[in-house]
Amino acid sequence: MAGSTFGKQFKITTWGESHGAGVGVVIDGCPAGLSLSSEDIQLYLNRRKPGQSRFTTPRKEDDAVEILSGVFEGKTTGTPISLVVYNCNQKSKDYSEIAACYRPGHADYTFDAKYGFRDYRGGGRSSGRETIGRVAAGAVAAKILKELGINLTAYTKSIGDISISTLDLAEIANNALYMPDADAAAKASAYLDTCMQEHDSSGGVIECIIDGMPAGIGEPVFDKLDADLAKAIFSIGAVKGFEIGDGFLTSFAKGSENNDAFFYDENGNVCKKTNHAGGILGGMSDGAPIVLRAAVKPTPSIFKAQQTVNRSGENITLEIKGRHDPVIVPRAVVVVESMAALVLVDALMENMSSRLEHMIEFYNS
Amino acid sequence: MAGSTFGKQFKITTWGESHGAGVGVVIDGCPAGLSLSSEDIQLYLNRRKPGQSRFTTPRKEDDAVEILSGVFEGKTTGTPISLVVYNCNQKSKDYSEIAACYRPGHADYTFDAKYGFRDYRGGGRSSGRETIGRVAAGAVAAKILKELGINLTAYTKSIGDISISTLDLAEIANNALYMPDADAAAKASAYLDTCMQEHDSSGGVIECIIDGMPAGIGEPVFDKLDADLAKAIFSIGAVKGFEIGDGFLTSFAKGSENNDAFFYDENGNVCKKTNHAGGILGGMSDGAPIVLRAAVKPTPSIFKAQQTVNRSGENITLEIKGRHDPVIVPRAVVVVESMAALVLVDALMENMSSRLEHMIEFYNS
Amino acid sequence: MAGSTFGKQFKITTWGESHGAGVGVVIDGCPAGLSLSSEDIQLYLNRRKPGQSRFTTPRKEDDAVEILSGVFEGKTTGTPISLVVYNCNQKSKDYSEIAACYRPGHADYTFDAKYGFRDYRGGGRSSGRETIGRVAAGAVAAKILKELGINLTAYTKSIGDISISTLDLAEIANNALYMPDADAAAKASAYLDTCMQEHDSSGGVIECIIDGMPAGIGEPVFDKLDADLAKAIFSIGAVKGFEIGDGFLTSFAKGSENNDAFFYDENGNVCKKTNHAGGILGGMSDGAPIVLRAAVKPTPSIFKAQQTVNRSGENITLEIKGRHDPVIVPRAVVVVESMAALVLVDALMENMSSRLEHMIEFYNS
Amino acid sequence: MAGSTFGKQFKITTWGESHGAGVGVVIDGCPAGLSLSSEDIQLYLNRRKPGQSRFTTPRKEDDAVEILSGVFEGKTTGTPISLVVYNCNQKSKDYSEIAACYRPGHADYTFDAKYGFRDYRGGGRSSGRETIGRVAAGAVAAKILKELGINLTAYTKSIGDISISTLDLAEIANNALYMPDADAAAKASAYLDTCMQEHDSSGGVIECIIDGMPAGIGEPVFDKLDADLAKAIFSIGAVKGFEIGDGFLTSFAKGSENNDAFFYDENGNVCKKTNHAGGILGGMSDGAPIVLRAAVKPTPSIFKAQQTVNRSGENITLEIKGRHDPVIVPRAVVVVESMAALVLVDALMENMSSRLEHMIEFYNS
Repeated sequence: MAGSTFGKQFKITTWGESHGAGVGVVIDGCPAGLSLSSEDIQLYLNRRKPGQSRFTTPRKEDDAVEILSGVFEGKTTGTPISLVVYNCNQKSKDYSEIAACYRPGHADYTFDAKYGFRDYRGGGRSSGRETIGRVAAGAVAAKILKELGINLTAYTKSIGDISISTLDLAEIANNALYMPDADAAAKASAYLDTCMQEHDSSGGVIECIIDGMPAGIGEPVFDKLDADLAKAIFSIGAVKGFEIGDGFLTSFAKGSENNDAFFYDENGNVCKKTNHAGGILGGMSDGAPIVLRAAVKPTPSIFKAQQTVNRSGENITLEIKGRHDPVIVPRAVVVVESMAALVLVDALMENMSSRLEHMIEFYNS
Repeated sequence: MAGSTFGKQFKITTWGESHGAGVGVVIDGCPAGLSLSSEDIQLYLNRRKPGQSRFTTPRKEDDAVEILSGVFEGKTTGTPISLVVYNCNQKSKDYSEIAACYRPGHADYTFDAKYGFRDYRGGGRSSGRETIGRVAAGAVAAKILKELGINLTAYTKSIGDISISTLDLAEIANNALYMPDADAAAKASAYLDTCMQEHDSSGGVIECIIDGMPAGIGEPVFDKLDADLAKAIFSIGAVKGFEIGDGFLTSFAKGSENNDAFFYDENGNVCKKTNHAGGILGGMSDGAPIVLRAAVKPTPSIFKAQQTVNRSGENITLEIKGRHDPVIVPRAVVVVESMAALVLVDALMENMSSRLEHMIEFYNS
Repeated sequence: MAGSTFGKQFKITTWGESHGAGVGVVIDGCPAGLSLSSEDIQLYLNRRKPGQSRFTTPRKEDDAVEILSGVFEGKTTGTPISLVVYNCNQKSKDYSEIAACYRPGHADYTFDAKYGFRDYRGGGRSSGRETIGRVAAGAVAAKILKELGINLTAYTKSIGDISISTLDLAEIANNALYMPDADAAAKASAYLDTCMQEHDSSGGVIECIIDGMPAGIGEPVFDKLDADLAKAIFSIGAVKGFEIGDGFLTSFAKGSENNDAFFYDENGNVCKKTNHAGGILGGMSDGAPIVLRAAVKPTPSIFKAQQTVNRSGENITLEIKGRHDPVIVPRAVVVVESMAALVLVDALMENMSSRLEHMIEFYNS
Repeated sequence: MAGSTFGKQFKITTWGESHGAGVGVVIDGCPAGLSLSSEDIQLYLNRRKPGQSRFTTPRKEDDAVEILSGVFEGKTTGTPISLVVYNCNQKSKDYSEIAACYRPGHADYTFDAKYGFRDYRGGGRSSGRETIGRVAAGAVAAKILKELGINLTAYTKSIGDISISTLDLAEIANNALYMPDADAAAKASAYLDTCMQEHDSSGGVIECIIDGMPAGIGEPVFDKLDADLAKAIFSIGAVKGFEIGDGFLTSFAKGSENNDAFFYDENGNVCKKTNHAGGILGGMSDGAPIVLRAAVKPTPSIFKAQQTVNRSGENITLEIKGRHDPVIVPRAVVVVESMAALVLVDALMENMSSRLEHMIEFYNS
C-alpha cells in the first residue's frame, strides 16, 4: 500500500489531506551544498495556489511553506528536507452529503472499495492539495537542474479545442491560463466563461519542454527516461494521456518521416535535424530538447445535476455545491513541470555510476 | 544503472542481447501453487516470434523457452522462476557498418553516449528480442490473473490511418496483424505492402482491454494503477504515446460529458453507465473494464537511404540492409498485454494488506 | 544518498536534526482501520525521552507528538501518517568548538568526509533525537502486531559486565535501567555512578523477545527475517553487534547441541523442544519466540580529555562539556523494540501474497 | 515474496534449486567497461566448491560458470550480466524420507509453513548451492573494488573453541580450513575429525577485513554501511551473529577505552590511533580498515539420530544419510567476502551523487 514515495535517489514522500492539519513532503537524497530558501519553493507553490484568477476557486489559501529540516546555513546538508504547508482554510462545513455518496469522476467510490472508508472532507488524500508536496519538491529539483544548465518550461497547450498557434514563452506568465499565445488565451478564457455559465468544466493539454539535458541519461530497459516520465505525469490526478515528441502522431507516420537524421554541427557535436523523437531514443536522452504532453480531463466537480449512488444502496441525483475550478489545466502546469524535474534529477544522479572509468576517476583522483 | 528489473511484489529481471548466448527473465515473487509448464509460456512467445507472416522478418527463430528453476512437480514453489530462450540464429555477419555509425531512430547513439561503447550486433540490448523475457513473464502473470477471473485482450487498433471499425475478438487470431476487424486487416495489409515496396515502414496503435478487475486496486498517489501501466507500456521500445479510457479526447470534453454516472445494478453492485475513465478513478480500478492504448512508432530500420553520422566525426549516407519488419505493431501486441498483466498482478498482491481487518482475518483465522 | 526510508510495505521516512525545527516521520503503507491516537504514540516516546533518571541527560524535552495526517475519526485511513515532534529546547549555545573539531567515536568526521560540511549543532542528523521518528512509527507497528496477537518485550540484558540473572518482566518498568532483574539493576546503577564520577561511560546489551509470530514469515533468500532484523537493529547509532537465538555461542556448539528437536504438542501443532535458533529457521519464523540481542557501545561523549583533530589540520586535546547520558542502553531499549516491530509488520504484510490459493480466496470470496 | 534480489545500484537476483537444472544470478547495474571473463568468476566459485578436502562433501561438482549476457569483447556493457552454473550431479536418489519429515535445524518446516509445499530435493532453494549466485556476483563486485584500490580478505577465525592467534594472510590458502594460522588450522582439523567420528558437526567464526575504503561511504540513517553489511552477512543461511570492530566486546567497555583518537598523519590525512569502531562511524566508512565477523552455526545435517516430526502428524526418530560437511565455515568464507563486496560496490556507486558540486563537475566539465 505504500504508494506515496516517488524516486530512487532523489526520493520524495508526500503526506496530507485536504482538510487535515497540513500537507507536506520529505525529500530524501537531495545532494548536499545546494543553496535553498523557502522563497525558492514559494515561487513554485504560488504558481498553483488558488484564488489567482476567476478560473480558480476563490478559496484564499496562502500555502506558505516552511522548511523543517535538511538545510543549514542556507545550504542543503544531504539529509532529509521536510517541507510543510499548514492548512488554514478548512471550513467546518457540512460534508454529510459527500460522505454519503460517490461523486462521478472522483475517487470516492474507489477509496471506499479499497479501504472500507475514507476521509471525505474536500477530497481527502485525492484532493488537488496533495500536489503541494510534489511542487515543493519539484522546486528543489528544478533548482538543481538549473545548476546543471537544464531548464524546464511547461505551459497550457490547449483548452477544449482552442490550441496555441505560437510559442511565445514571455507570454506564459502574462495570462491566467499560462498559455504562450495571447490570442489563444483570450479565446480560451471566453470558452471557460461559457463553461462556467453552463455549470460545466473543460479539459486541456499541458506541454513541457526541457532544454540542456546531456545525452545518455536514462536506463535502457524498464527505467527508460520516457517510461519514468510517463509514470510521473500519469500519477497526477486528472491526467488521462501522455506523449513524448510526436506521440500519437507517430502511429500515422512512416519511418522515413519519423526518423530524425543525425549530423555533426560546427563544434563536432552530434545533433539531429528534426526532433520527432522528443529528445529520447531507446529510453535515453539524445541531447535534443525533451518534449512531453499530458492530456488533462475536465474538472469532475461540476454544478450540473448528475446521476449517481449513495452508500445506502440508492440511485440519487447529486448537485454539487461549493467552489471549484472550471478547468484543472492552468494550476496543473507547474505540477507537470515539477514531476518532470523530479524524474530528471533522479536519472542524472543514477547515471553517474554507469561507467567504471568514471568511478575510478571519482574515487582515485 | 540498474534498470532491468520491473515490479515490486511480482518482480521480473530480464537479461540478454540480440546476438548473445540467449535472452531470459527471472521472476521473483510468483505466488506458490500455480500450475505452470513451458507450454503455457510458449503459447505467448509464439505470438511475438518472427517468421509468422510476410510482415515479420523471415528470420526463423524457434524461441523455445526452458524453465530452469522455481517449478516443482508442475507447480510454482514461490522461489524465483528462471526462464531462458537460447539464441539460435545469430549469423556471424559483418556488423562493422552498424558498429561504426548511428542509425536514425535507434538507440545506437544514446547507448554510446551513456556507456562509451555498445554491443552493436543486431541492436544488442535494445533489440526487440529483449521483449522475450517480458512476454515469458507476462504469460505467468496472465495465468495468475485468469485464476482470479481477470482476462486481458490486446489487439491492433490501427496501422497508419487505417483503424478498426468493429471489435470482433474472434477475428484477432485470424489475421497476421492481430486486428479484430477482417476488413481493416485487409486494408492495412495492402497499406503495408505499399510501405514495403517503398522501402519504408508504418506506425500504429495497440489497444488492450482488461475484464474482471475488482474495484479498489492500485495505490492513490504515485503508484496509481494507471501510472504504473503508463510506465510499463512506455518501457516498450517503440511506444511514444499512452492513454487510458478516452485519453487525449478528454482534453476536448466537458465535465458533463466525461463524468461516468454511477448506478446500482440489479445485484446491488456499483456500476457505471459509461466508461470514459477507462476503468480507473483516482488511480484505483473502479470495476469497469480497464481500457488502454499505446501509440507505436514506425520501425526505424528502413531500406531507404538516410542521412546520419559515423563515430569518426563524419556525416554519411546510410543504407540499411538485412531483414526487418515493416511494422512493429503486430508483434508488440502480446508485449503490451504482457506488461499490463505484470502491473495488475503486482497491484493485486500489494493490495492484500491494505486493511487491518483483512490482516486480522488472514492471520487469526 | 536516500537512506532515511525503511521498509517495503510498511515504509517509514524519518527527518530532522537535533537542533532544527523538529523531528518526525512519515509512515506510508499503514493498513486502514487501526484505531490510533497521539497517546498511543506518546507512551512509546516517553520511554526514550530524556530527564527520566540520573542516568539520562537532565535536558527537559516534552517530546510531544502531533499527528498531522492519515488518521480520520480515530482510525488510520491507509494514507501516509505524518508525525512530528517539535524541538523545544534548542539552546542557542556556542557550537564553535564542536563545529571545528572531530569528536572521537562520533560521526563528525565521516559526515564531513561525505558531504563537505555538516549541521554540527547537537550532533545534527546523527543525534539520538533522530530515533524519535523510529519510535513514533514503532508504536504504530507494535499496535498492529498486538491486534494480530504478537507482542514484543525489550529490556536491558547487561551494562558493562553486570548481566541479568532472572527474567522478571514485571520489574522492567520499575527501574530506570529497564532491567528485568532488580538486583542487577541496583548493581548496574552503582557501576554507572562510578563511570560518571570517572567522567566516563559504559556499554551494554539489549535483548528483545517476540511472542506470537506465526510460522513461515520472512523470505527465504536475501530478505530473511533475521537479515532484515539485523539491518534494522544495526541501523541504530551505537549498535556494534547483533545476534539471533544462541548467536555467537553457536560457533562453539556442535550440531547435536544446536539443533532444536521438533515435536507435536497435544493440539497437533509443530513445536520445538529447545529454541537455540531464536525462532527463525532458513530466514522464516518457526513459531517459537524470536529472540534477538544488540551490543551497544559506550556513549562516545565523555568528559575526560581526549586526543583528536580539528578541521584546520591540527592535533588537539578536546574536553567535551554539556550534558550527556553515561550509558545509551536504557533509552535505546524502546528503539530496539520499535525497529523490530517495523520489520515484523512489513514481513507479515509481504507474506499475505505468498500462495496463489490465498489470493484466490481473498479476491474470489 | 520477492526476496531473491539484493542491492540498489549494483543489484543481483539469484535463482535456482539444489537439484533443479542449475543455479545462477543476474547482475543488473554493473558499470560498463570492466574487463571480465568467466575465469575471473571461476576463481571465486572454486573457493566454495565441494570435494576440496576431507571436510567438505566428497560430491564432485565442477560448478563451471557461463556468462550468458552483459559482456562484449571482454568488457561489461552496463547491461545485465547473466551467469549460470548448471547442476551436473543431481542423483535421482530417493527423497521420500526428507520429503515427509522436517529435519531439525533446517528450513523444511518453515518452507512448508509459508508455501504449503516445497522442493525437498537436496534442500531445494535453501541449499548451500544458492550461494553460488552470490559468489559469482561477488567476484564481479570484488574486481570493481580492486580497480578502486579496495581489497577484501576473509578467513576462518575460529572453529569450535579453537581460534587463530596469528594473522598470517599467506597461510589462508595453504590449509583446507582457510585459517591464517597453521597451528590453529591443525588443531581445528583434529577437532573436526573428532566431530566426524561422533557423527556430529561444528560451528565457527568468519572474519573479513576490507582495506582501502575511502572515508564517507554509506548513508547516515537506515542505510548505514554497517547495517547493510549486517543484512548482507545475515542473509547467508547459517549465520547467527554479526559484529563490526570490537562488536559485543564494546558492551563491556568504557567510552574512554572504546573511542578511537583521531590524528593527522605526515601527509595531512585524518587517521585513527586505534580501530575499535571497525572502520565505520555513524554508518559511514572512516578510512580505517573495515573489520566484520560472522558467527556460523554447526551444520544441521548430522548423522546422529534426532527427534523430529513428519508431515503426517507423527513424532519420529530421524537418521540422516548421505554426504554432508562437518563444518560450514570454510566454504562460507568466500560467501562472506562476496556479500561484503556487493554491499561496498553498491555504497560506492550510491555515494557519487551525494554532493551538488560533484554533480556539477561531472556534468558540466
